[in-house]
Amino acid sequence: MGALGASCRNCEMCCQDLEAYCSEKVFTHGSIDKHGEPTQGGFCDLMVADEHFLFCWPENLPMDAGAPLLCAGITTYSSMRYFGLDKPGIHVGIVGLGGLGHLAVKFAKAFGAKVTVISTSASKRQEAITKLGADAFLVSSNPEQMQAAASTMDGILDTVSANHPIVHLINLVKPLGKFILLGLPEKPPELPIFPIIMGKEKDNCW
Amino acid sequence: MGALGASCRNCEMCCQDLEAYCSEKVFTHGSIDKHGEPTQGGFCDLMVADEHFLFCWPENLPMDAGAPLLCAGITTYSSMRYFGLDKPGIHVGIVGLGGLGHLAVKFAKAFGAKVTVISTSASKRQEAITKLGADAFLVSSNPEQMQAAASTMDGILDTVSANHPIVHLINLVKPLGKFILLGLPEKPPELPIFPIIMGKEKDNCW
Repeated sequence: MGALGASCRNCEMCCQDLEAYCSEKVFTHGSIDKHGEPTQGGFCDLMVADEHFLFCWPENLPMDAGAPLLCAGITTYSSMRYFGLDKPGIHVGIVGLGGLGHLAVKFAKAFGAKVTVISTSASKRQEAITKLGADAFLVSSNPEQMQAAASTMDGILDTVSANHPIVHLINLVKPLGKFILLGLPEKPPELPIFPIIMGKEKDNCW
Repeated sequence: MGALGASCRNCEMCCQDLEAYCSEKVFTHGSIDKHGEPTQGGFCDLMVADEHFLFCWPENLPMDAGAPLLCAGITTYSSMRYFGLDKPGIHVGIVGLGGLGHLAVKFAKAFGAKVTVISTSASKRQEAITKLGADAFLVSSNPEQMQAAASTMDGILDTVSANHPIVHLINLVKPLGKFILLGLPEKPPELPIFPIIMGKEKDNCW
C-alpha cells in the first residue's frame, strides 16, 4: 500500500484512474478517514485497507528494494511518462540525487535517455556515473559547466526539497522543453519571467 | 511586420518555424541587427526588412483593427493553440482585460470555449460580457466568487503584467489543467508548491 489510501471513486478524476487528484482523497498517514478517524500510516503488522489501493507484491522483489517504488518511484516514473520524458535518445537532467533523484536516474536510463545529473555536491559524481549509470554530471555552482550545458536538455526533473533558485536550472532546458518541480521547498520558488522568456539567465536582457 | 525582424534561419528552432526561439533572433525594436546597428522599430514610412518576417495584409482588414494581431494577437492565439486550449466546449479563464486579454476572449469564443473573465475591476464586467461575449465574470478579490469557481477551468491565460499573486488563480484550474503566464511582471511570480499540489489555497494543508 502506498501513500494514497482512499478516494471517492466517483468523481471526474477517479473515473480516469487519477485518484491522487480526487478532492476527497485520504492519505495513508496524517489524513482523516471517512469515519472521521486519523489515518495511522503503514508501520504496523496488520491494517484494514481498501483493496483498490493495494498492490500485489512480486515474490521475487525484496521488500527493501521495492518499497521506495511506492513513493519516490511513482513520483518520478509518473511525471516522466506524463510529460513525455520517457523516449529513447532524449536528454534528461535530474537535479538532486536523493530518494527521488536516484530512482529518476534509473528510470531515465531504462527509458533510453541520455541522463545528466545536476548537484550542488561534486562528491555525488561517482555515485551518479559509476553506480547509477548517468552519462554526465554538472556541479550547479560552477557557472562555466552550467553555461556550457545551456539549452541542451529536453527536460529536467528537479527533485530538491531545499529552498533553491531555479532560473540557472531552467536555463539548461531547450526552448519548449519541460522543467518539472518534484521537490517540496517551503519557500515558494520564484519564476523570473524575463530570463525565462528570453532564454538567458541575466535579468537585464532587453 | 511584427516584433520579430530576423533570426539565423539555420538552427533547430528556425528549422521548425519557431524563429521566435532562435538564440540569434533580432527584434524590430530595441535589438542589435547583424550589422551591429540598433533596430529602430516600425513607426516609420519606409524600412528595409527581410521578407521572411513580413505578413501579407488582407485588403479588407483595417490597419487599426489588424495591428494588434501582430503582437497581442499572436501571443494569445499561439499559446491557446500550443497548449490545447482551442477546443469547443472546454472552459477557459482569461485573467485581465487589457490588450492581450480582450483578444484572448475573442479567440477563445471563436474556438467554441466557455469563457470566464477574471479581473480585479468589477467595472470590466460589461465590456467582458456584452461587448466581447464572455460567458461569465469573476472579481478576483471576491473570495466567495473565486471559491465557487474552484477547479472548474481547463486552462487559464493570465495576461496581467502588474505584480500579482497567482495561487488563487491557479486554484480555479482543474487538476492537470494549464495555467499560462503571458504577462511580464517585474517581480518574479511565486509558486507556492503545497497549495498547488494539494489543490487548496491555504498554505497549511498537511
